[in-house]
Amino acid sequence: MLFDKNILQKIDEELKTYVDIDNNKLYNASKHLLFAGGKRIRPYLTVVTYMLKKDDIEEVLPAAAAVELIHNYTLIHDDIMDNDDERRGKPTVHVVFGEPMAILAGDLLYAKAFEAVSRIKDNKKAHEVLKILSKACVEVCEGQAMDMEFENYYPTMEEYLEMIRKKTGALLEASIEIGAVMAECNEEEREALKEYAKRIGLTFQIQDDVLDLIGDQKKLGKPVGSDIREGKKTIIVIHALKTLDEEKKKRLLEILGNKDIGDEEIKEAIEILKPSIEYAKELMKQKTEEAKNYLKIFDKNRRKVLENLADFIISRVY
Amino acid sequence: MLFDKNILQKIDEELKTYVDIDNNKLYNASKHLLFAGGKRIRPYLTVVTYMLKKDDIEEVLPAAAAVELIHNYTLIHDDIMDNDDERRGKPTVHVVFGEPMAILAGDLLYAKAFEAVSRIKDNKKAHEVLKILSKACVEVCEGQAMDMEFENYYPTMEEYLEMIRKKTGALLEASIEIGAVMAECNEEEREALKEYAKRIGLTFQIQDDVLDLIGDQKKLGKPVGSDIREGKKTIIVIHALKTLDEEKKKRLLEILGNKDIGDEEIKEAIEILKPSIEYAKELMKQKTEEAKNYLKIFDKNRRKVLENLADFIISRVY
Repeated sequence: MLFDKNILQKIDEELKTYVDIDNNKLYNASKHLLFAGGKRIRPYLTVVTYMLKKDDIEEVLPAAAAVELIHNYTLIHDDIMDNDDERRGKPTVHVVFGEPMAILAGDLLYAKAFEAVSRIKDNKKAHEVLKILSKACVEVCEGQAMDMEFENYYPTMEEYLEMIRKKTGALLEASIEIGAVMAECNEEEREALKEYAKRIGLTFQIQDDVLDLIGDQKKLGKPVGSDIREGKKTIIVIHALKTLDEEKKKRLLEILGNKDIGDEEIKEAIEILKPSIEYAKELMKQKTEEAKNYLKIFDKNRRKVLENLADFIISRVY
Repeated sequence: MLFDKNILQKIDEELKTYVDIDNNKLYNASKHLLFAGGKRIRPYLTVVTYMLKKDDIEEVLPAAAAVELIHNYTLIHDDIMDNDDERRGKPTVHVVFGEPMAILAGDLLYAKAFEAVSRIKDNKKAHEVLKILSKACVEVCEGQAMDMEFENYYPTMEEYLEMIRKKTGALLEASIEIGAVMAECNEEEREALKEYAKRIGLTFQIQDDVLDLIGDQKKLGKPVGSDIREGKKTIIVIHALKTLDEEKKKRLLEILGNKDIGDEEIKEAIEILKPSIEYAKELMKQKTEEAKNYLKIFDKNRRKVLENLADFIISRVY
């Protein structure tokens, strides 16, 4: 078992304390997604990073809850912005509660995240965590704005990488950095963990994009190739557009973002994208190895969980 | 001059440092309202509360910026939720930049507010401010949710007072409490300032509602009686429904929230509401006196500004 059930349970118990109000529309809307079966990867990363050096899990739980609460606020707002009706196979918050209440539910979780930070007992740690988390929140917004702009043009690989580093990477990196702060890591350790975090943040996003193309529909909770139909600019697509011959490139562009296409064209596009999927897989392997190498300065037994997590991220099926 | 220009300028300069990025749609959307001529009452309260005991304004500016950034995020999101097209005589953010970008602009200012808190140098003060501000943010959301629910029924006076204490009062109170923390006020001083804050928070909201009925259209930037047309439940309306005879009450309910009514009916409603407007004015006078009494424990010269502000709030014309 990669994820320790005991830790996951503690994270969930901590999260519940922030939204423990019943029969209230706002709180119901705020809980809808928060307890809909998310993987809890971010708070888990915070806790296991902390456990590289320390064992008093209770101390780190508010910090872990904070990153998960931020993650959930961004999902609720993103679903409104992107007009998505489903997530994890369930109707999104704005579909169930209406857009105004969904905006507000996101805003409430945002506030609760910083309330969580304020529950950290040590003044200095709370202050450090606040710096890291607020900076990450800024970057997440900037990344989302870039992503929205990409609807109007094909970004370069550099622009794309900046976008996902901000939109997805920033909060994953923050989750780890916050664990490091709570564990009182020294400068060298924090730097190593940052490099680890950058790489798994990247592989996390790439694996999402790969799974959309070659994953299992049932496990993903959405149809394979959704990104193709939506014309989403992923690292795979951008690599393909850079490397394909003119004919294949032209055909790919005809299919991408075309709402009228059927399963046949989706299959055709995936076929065209195959070399770029391979490129993405290779890149992930390389980044995962690099990530694990940065952990070498930590205790052999204690670092095991983070090593396994790096492997898990690129082997996961949903 | 009630508001010290020098302080206002310092607040604006501080605010600019958080959104100092040009040619970027997200940042343009975030700046649209932030520099559209707001009164800066909240950050001003933070600064002048601080100055009850201390003079190093630079120390308190990040905290002051934080409350103004939160205020602006709530306005942007509220305008989306309430579907309002204009604020301060200018088109709202979502009208100019579209709803997705407006949601995101609010989210960015939210993050910047906590970045501002993280810029407070002293660990302990930063931690205290974080506690106060995150709690206020939770209450603002709860208040807004209550206000949205009020669209479906007439709340009792108690429910109404709880709603405005949260929606409007919480952040005004936080602005003052944060000033007190930054000024290292003792427990007694903090309690007195809290009582002061509660009262001016209430009078601030009531004066808004009074101005809507008997204010100057040009100075307000919106037509007189908008609240009547929208059927807004204000303290004046709730008092009227509690005290009017059946005939007048019936007539008032016919007019309230009726989109087809003209200026004649607005005038008629205001006439019916006159005794309740008087009630509201009396209540404000009483609360303002109480508020000023709580300041008596502070230095006579230093407390002058807060005394004048309490008077200003109920005498302001916009």
